[in-house]
Amino acid sequence: MAKRLVVVGGVAGGTSAAAKAKRTNSQWDVVIFEKGPYVSYGGCGLPYYVEGEIEKKEDLVVRWPRQFREQGIEVYTHSEVKAIDVDKGEVEVYHAQEGQTRRYPFDALVVATGARPLVPPLPGRDLEGIYVLRTPDQGEAIRRELESGNVKKAVVVGGGFIGVEMCEALARWGVEVTVVELLDQILPPMDRDMADVVARYLEEKGVNILTGHGVEGFLGRDRVEKVVAGGEEIPADMVILSVGVRPNVDLAREAGIQLGSTGAIAANQRMETNVEGVYTAGDCAEARHIITGEPVYIPLGTTANKMGRVAGTNAVGGDAVFKGVLGTAVFKVMDLGGAMTGLTEKDASRRGIPYSVARITARDRAHYYPGGQRITVKLVYNSETGRLLGSQIVGRWTSVKRIDAVAVALYAGMTVEDFSRQDLAYAPPFSPVWDPLLVAANKAVR
Amino acid sequence: MAKRLVVVGGVAGGTSAAAKAKRTNSQWDVVIFEKGPYVSYGGCGLPYYVEGEIEKKEDLVVRWPRQFREQGIEVYTHSEVKAIDVDKGEVEVYHAQEGQTRRYPFDALVVATGARPLVPPLPGRDLEGIYVLRTPDQGEAIRRELESGNVKKAVVVGGGFIGVEMCEALARWGVEVTVVELLDQILPPMDRDMADVVARYLEEKGVNILTGHGVEGFLGRDRVEKVVAGGEEIPADMVILSVGVRPNVDLAREAGIQLGSTGAIAANQRMETNVEGVYTAGDCAEARHIITGEPVYIPLGTTANKMGRVAGTNAVGGDAVFKGVLGTAVFKVMDLGGAMTGLTEKDASRRGIPYSVARITARDRAHYYPGGQRITVKLVYNSETGRLLGSQIVGRWTSVKRIDAVAVALYAGMTVEDFSRQDLAYAPPFSPVWDPLLVAANKAVR
Repeated sequence: MAKRLVVVGGVAGGTSAAAKAKRTNSQWDVVIFEKGPYVSYGGCGLPYYVEGEIEKKEDLVVRWPRQFREQGIEVYTHSEVKAIDVDKGEVEVYHAQEGQTRRYPFDALVVATGARPLVPPLPGRDLEGIYVLRTPDQGEAIRRELESGNVKKAVVVGGGFIGVEMCEALARWGVEVTVVELLDQILPPMDRDMADVVARYLEEKGVNILTGHGVEGFLGRDRVEKVVAGGEEIPADMVILSVGVRPNVDLAREAGIQLGSTGAIAANQRMETNVEGVYTAGDCAEARHIITGEPVYIPLGTTANKMGRVAGTNAVGGDAVFKGVLGTAVFKVMDLGGAMTGLTEKDASRRGIPYSVARITARDRAHYYPGGQRITVKLVYNSETGRLLGSQIVGRWTSVKRIDAVAVALYAGMTVEDFSRQDLAYAPPFSPVWDPLLVAANKAVR
Repeated sequence: MAKRLVVVGGVAGGTSAAAKAKRTNSQWDVVIFEKGPYVSYGGCGLPYYVEGEIEKKEDLVVRWPRQFREQGIEVYTHSEVKAIDVDKGEVEVYHAQEGQTRRYPFDALVVATGARPLVPPLPGRDLEGIYVLRTPDQGEAIRRELESGNVKKAVVVGGGFIGVEMCEALARWGVEVTVVELLDQILPPMDRDMADVVARYLEEKGVNILTGHGVEGFLGRDRVEKVVAGGEEIPADMVILSVGVRPNVDLAREAGIQLGSTGAIAANQRMETNVEGVYTAGDCAEARHIITGEPVYIPLGTTANKMGRVAGTNAVGGDAVFKGVLGTAVFKVMDLGGAMTGLTEKDASRRGIPYSVARITARDRAHYYPGGQRITVKLVYNSETGRLLGSQIVGRWTSVKRIDAVAVALYAGMTVEDFSRQDLAYAPPFSPVWDPLLVAANKAVR
């Protein structure tokens, strides 16, 4: 009888693992169990679906169950894995539409249970009009409300990447947006000086930003009417909670699969957990940071896909390694973009790494080429060895993906001096003759 | 008495050298002699000035003589260095506006004499309406003709980067453009399969492309009326000759400064020539190729600036090295862009390097994000070691600068497998979850 790989969770990490496993070894049966109604959807696209840039929630689906079946992969949606018995090699699955629980044996397992939005236990949090945004159905509910035209004012709780993307989405519907952030800056993963550039831009565009304000609760009869934060009462017809996510690890922990220091599932470079034959991938898993070597929890779509391929390959007898992450991330809000990779200044400081900073503002086109805009580049580097530690960029949204060049340099372990020597592409519409990245590197070298 | 650095040539390489020298060691006198009327102009912007995107030719000037003087650098325009006496340490300079020749001693010298456009000795080449585009004054002459409205049809001889950029410039004036290229493809530095993507795009936009056609001459009474190419007579009110450049090395050669195998001035990593104290930079100098280690002649604005900084630093007693080039280049034509770095397939083949190719076409945004366009990425890698050798990209112009990530990987000596592991930035407006670069790398690894 063919061996069976069971994949728990069918979004980015799980479906990547399943597809790669089947391609690696077609002799194996591969089965995906997904709790929700969709598999393989682009969760990162949800703010744009809410915005209306993407018409239908179904457009977010990358591959439909039919397409997996054509590849020889079985897919069960509405099917929640309730328990994993690693000794017997069995999962217990509740098929919600049939109301039945069944057990399935496995020879290898990939745990890709993803993450869930953190919902702080605040008074009034069950009022109508308060949303998290993680699934297509949640996105649809938010969009329906916006389409109704009844939402005039919205509060986004949490000014992270998704919170900032939601500013664009809500503003597009003519909604007055207030971002409430507990910390003293929006975009907590970035340094404050860079985040402030984004905050000033958003304020110019009419977004209210309240940093250093913790939300104390929500007021309203059935529906939310006000958000109480820092003693203020902020009118709100809608609230988006985007204060971060937590890995879904209950199932794994109960099965005896070890969690790491970050609270997410621990795995080696082969994405194998402490239990032989049990792998993990995606937003439930921690990863090694390429710069520090430490385990980190930075759940991102690209990482989930990469982990999934490695887990899927190894689960069916192949051989692949996942080298880790730099936390490279990018976002667009209106015409602005921001990007980061590696360590921030505060990351370096917190770890006691001796560091220096080179920060420059330049144009993103040759000075004489029309339409040039300001771009700010920050490089953080080890002040003793010169090794690049990380970078952050804020500028016109089409200009910030140049962060990738720094991500590659970080992976390679380059010093700022080496980075200043890079032969980057130049023509007047694309950058000044010295790319802003090199201007920053030259400043670091001086 | 202060020591004196003389810089011969005041465009990119020369002015970079002068400025860097003065910053490195302000004790030195620094003097620039420039034959033409302008110093420090952005030659790469000339097609955009012709197009009208840039209003005045003066807008191309990066720094005016006054600005150099404020920094303590003497600048002489209309001043051609006629001879270099390396034994005496003297240059002989003809100051055209005064009609006088003077001699100036130097303690160190930077030769930055640049390059000149190749003008094939064809019948009729002295007819009016035939231009090369290298200096602001040449750009102005072309633009005046276009502004007159008398140019209905133009022939661009040579389909390299500048030839292709001129297609955009001429088309903007409503001119019907024909590109005549001797080789069997436009964009000779790229591989034919990639160049053909650009050619098809240009044809869709109404540009006529004649490859494999050598120009035999020009017909007309006083003014060009026809271009004879491959036996055909192509009507033309204007001709742009863009068949490449040659380094200006006569002055150096006559002074006993050694040329390299490429015909350009040879220098070590410190940009010092065979003559102690004599440095070189810019389009007159050859460089070491980072992949092959061979000397190459790839004159580009970025390279000129980098070489200039190194030459200027060392000339006044500092210490800097120029590690070489990858030939990274990028161009925009209308809404399309192309980029390359490192070796092409034909470069690898010519050198007998065992190579493989991974070529993919993908979308440049998440499939569900509106406005995504096709992007083609080609990776060339050593089929024995897996080491990346080069890359070419064609796609929407704002998407092709991602070539920089490959340039950094090439500098670092990465394999395609390592490159497939890069943590590149992702959000739906910027790329699919697998960046097209990674899709290509994954294909190479398979």
